[in-house]
Amino acid sequence: MRDIQNLHDDRKINIRKVGVKTISYPITVLDREKKLQHTVATVNMYVNLPHRFKGTHMSRFVEILNRFYGEFNLKKFHLILEEMKQRLDAEAAHLEIEFPYFLEHRALAGSIGTERYECRMHGSLQDVDDLVMEVDVPITLPGTDPAGEGLPRSMGRWGYARVAVRFNEFIWIEDLISLVQQGIAGTTGLSGSVESLCRQLGEALGETRAIGWFRVEVENLADGYSTFASVEGP
Amino acid sequence: MRDIQNLHDDRKINIRKVGVKTISYPITVLDREKKLQHTVATVNMYVNLPHRFKGTHMSRFVEILNRFYGEFNLKKFHLILEEMKQRLDAEAAHLEIEFPYFLEHRALAGSIGTERYECRMHGSLQDVDDLVMEVDVPITLPGTDPAGEGLPRSMGRWGYARVAVRFNEFIWIEDLISLVQQGIAGTTGLSGSVESLCRQLGEALGETRAIGWFRVEVENLADGYSTFASVEGP
Amino acid sequence: MRDIQNLHDDRKINIRKVGVKTISYPITVLDREKKLQHTVATVNMYVNLPHRFKGTHMSRFVEILNRFYGEFNLKKFHLILEEMKQRLDAEAAHLEIEFPYFLEHRALAGSIGTERYECRMHGSLQDVDDLVMEVDVPITLPGTDPAGEGLPRSMGRWGYARVAVRFNEFIWIEDLISLVQQGIAGTTGLSGSVESLCRQLGEALGETRAIGWFRVEVENLADGYSTFASVEGP
Amino acid sequence: MRDIQNLHDDRKINIRKVGVKTISYPITVLDREKKLQHTVATVNMYVNLPHRFKGTHMSRFVEILNRFYGEFNLKKFHLILEEMKQRLDAEAAHLEIEFPYFLEHRALAGSIGTERYECRMHGSLQDVDDLVMEVDVPITLPGTDPAGEGLPRSMGRWGYARVAVRFNEFIWIEDLISLVQQGIAGTTGLSGSVESLCRQLGEALGETRAIGWFRVEVENLADGYSTFASVEGP
Repeated sequence: MRDIQNLHDDRKINIRKVGVKTISYPITVLDREKKLQHTVATVNMYVNLPHRFKGTHMSRFVEILNRFYGEFNLKKFHLILEEMKQRLDAEAAHLEIEFPYFLEHRALAGSIGTERYECRMHGSLQDVDDLVMEVDVPITLPGTDPAGEGLPRSMGRWGYARVAVRFNEFIWIEDLISLVQQGIAGTTGLSGSVESLCRQLGEALGETRAIGWFRVEVENLADGYSTFASVEGP
Repeated sequence: MRDIQNLHDDRKINIRKVGVKTISYPITVLDREKKLQHTVATVNMYVNLPHRFKGTHMSRFVEILNRFYGEFNLKKFHLILEEMKQRLDAEAAHLEIEFPYFLEHRALAGSIGTERYECRMHGSLQDVDDLVMEVDVPITLPGTDPAGEGLPRSMGRWGYARVAVRFNEFIWIEDLISLVQQGIAGTTGLSGSVESLCRQLGEALGETRAIGWFRVEVENLADGYSTFASVEGP
Repeated sequence: MRDIQNLHDDRKINIRKVGVKTISYPITVLDREKKLQHTVATVNMYVNLPHRFKGTHMSRFVEILNRFYGEFNLKKFHLILEEMKQRLDAEAAHLEIEFPYFLEHRALAGSIGTERYECRMHGSLQDVDDLVMEVDVPITLPGTDPAGEGLPRSMGRWGYARVAVRFNEFIWIEDLISLVQQGIAGTTGLSGSVESLCRQLGEALGETRAIGWFRVEVENLADGYSTFASVEGP
Repeated sequence: MRDIQNLHDDRKINIRKVGVKTISYPITVLDREKKLQHTVATVNMYVNLPHRFKGTHMSRFVEILNRFYGEFNLKKFHLILEEMKQRLDAEAAHLEIEFPYFLEHRALAGSIGTERYECRMHGSLQDVDDLVMEVDVPITLPGTDPAGEGLPRSMGRWGYARVAVRFNEFIWIEDLISLVQQGIAGTTGLSGSVESLCRQLGEALGETRAIGWFRVEVENLADGYSTFASVEGP
């Protein structure tokens, strides 16, 4: 019996994308304070317009991932993409990882020692490399201190800011989060709107030299639904 | 080949529970205003300690559900449970349904015409019937009206109250939700704590003659985690 | 105090998209057999590049949605989009709804009387209307009939086919699902690959006169991750 | 203004449970091969019937968690519970953690180097300690090797076995998973039923000296819903 995959050149329909997805994987990422941070990622790997792709090639994605087991940084991203593109003989290669990133923060009474930020890195390689880094920064409503013991409880969740950037020069996840948090703090309070907060964050990112491109989406959790606004720049 | 299920009496290990779950099903439930409300439920059906259970009996659950297609009310709940217990020759039968229930509300500018409440009904029949009804009532933070156009936006999500009851006499989902919303409104503001709000709702439910038993859980969404308190009564 | 939204023309950063999302809403959709089907949708509504957008305009989205309460069909889609574009003075308007659609099917012993399909409709209006309809068709592994009672149990979940189309002429959700199910049945068994199944479905859709454009993604649930392939045409 | 929490003794309704939940936290757990494994947990901490509980006590949960930052093992579980019970002056203390646990496995061509297992540990302390460990073991359908290259692809997901145990003596997560996987392999194929597989696993766990109590739930993913069976012992 002939391998059905080899026949594709005779057919009208060519595969545009093929790959593996939702691989759960323990990884390490760069951490400015602690050098490396251990976390758990969800990984997608796929290629565009592979030539003479056979089903058995599917295992190559996983082999490549396993060879780089452990560490994800910008350099590794590039190496994985290059190996994918080459070994699968494809026009373009894509690598997407999503992971929670934890930051220790000022030990307020009653605060969790670490705060969680959902991060995503989407790299692709066609002729040149492209990398987009995205992070979700939760926005909470600062509460009052009912018992007068220096314990300001949150009054709930206002929403979040989702920020995606391409950079001109390396930028730490920590610094991107700081930038957003300062932008939020700079607003005249959360009585404002998703539009005004979105513009404010857009301006802050637009003025940051290390950032070559950005997209901001601000979402406010309302009664049973959300309102949102987004900007892109420059 | 002998059917392996028939051998179970000779084994040490007897099945305690068996059934079907996460069936997605369009249903109708009673609605005080509109008589019937169409919604989509997730259904679980199972029995305890079935005698001489065979794998092929699994289809009986689905047959019973299909015969009652369409309508769920207290009477139907009882009939389904009775048929399950009898046809599967079991000590006890259980029926769990979960569905969103929609209430139209005062048409504030900017408000959705309907509000969604997650509801659950857990019925069981051993010697006597038992039915627990549960509903999640979201708690939002009332916001200010930035543009002075009579449009108070929500400032975010404070959390929710989850209320479960057994009743002495029939009570509408609408009335249970009202009871909770009045209890929340009666608090001295959301600067309070999960404990005080929880107690307040517990008192309101405890004073309602139609309610024979209740459990309240109040959850406040804080920075990256939640605080909660629960009471049960009487 | 001046309304901060009115100032945006003096700023560098203009809002690109603004709207409301994740509104849960009971709706009716067209059903070939039963004329109308009741279900529950999640709705997103937003506009691109609104001129002189003010925060208070957010309520207009919801007002428009409420006026069309109840029914979604192609004509209503167009009317909602037109009203959004006009009342929000925007370059483009978008309406996305997602809902489970239930089909009754041949009453096999042990089968649920209805099968659930996740559907999405994404409409937009800039100069002309555009509508994409998407449906997920689950692929299960037919099992054997262990007890010889005509009850072939499923042996588990193989994966799903996600099909998106733009049509030249109206096509029922029912017919799109049938087309996919026939395409799956036509394969030489599920021992095949995501690539071959994907091509096969692509050919079937490409030969259907009513379909002007399609995209197919086939996903196979493997050990702890998935493999997938996608095609697009014509 | 008097603290509203102090008044509770005069009220009819006493708080039964109070605590914090869904804290996302990077942790390490014991790993037989690598000594320690880094993963990310979701943590719940609460107490029953606290005496004179005040809202400000909520921060103590988090303080206790932060002091034990990093490592979870049986000893730490006991120490955390003891401190919770004492510092919150409660009748009982509860600690629940859920985390993915990764095991490296035989490097089959095309296999992910690590497999993910969802684990839960529920500890409580009233007069004596109690600890239940639970793990979900996915069950996949072994496929054929279409291209004859030694790459047996999975044919999809059959379901999973969820196993909870109390132990007489320490047992590694790895060993519990092995026990289940051997139990599954020992069945006459997946043409069997949830009931027979459930009994088989129950017998295997019942014969294991280190296990003092167990509960097994086996779930098979069928067409749009699941069938399940559970046993408990000894």
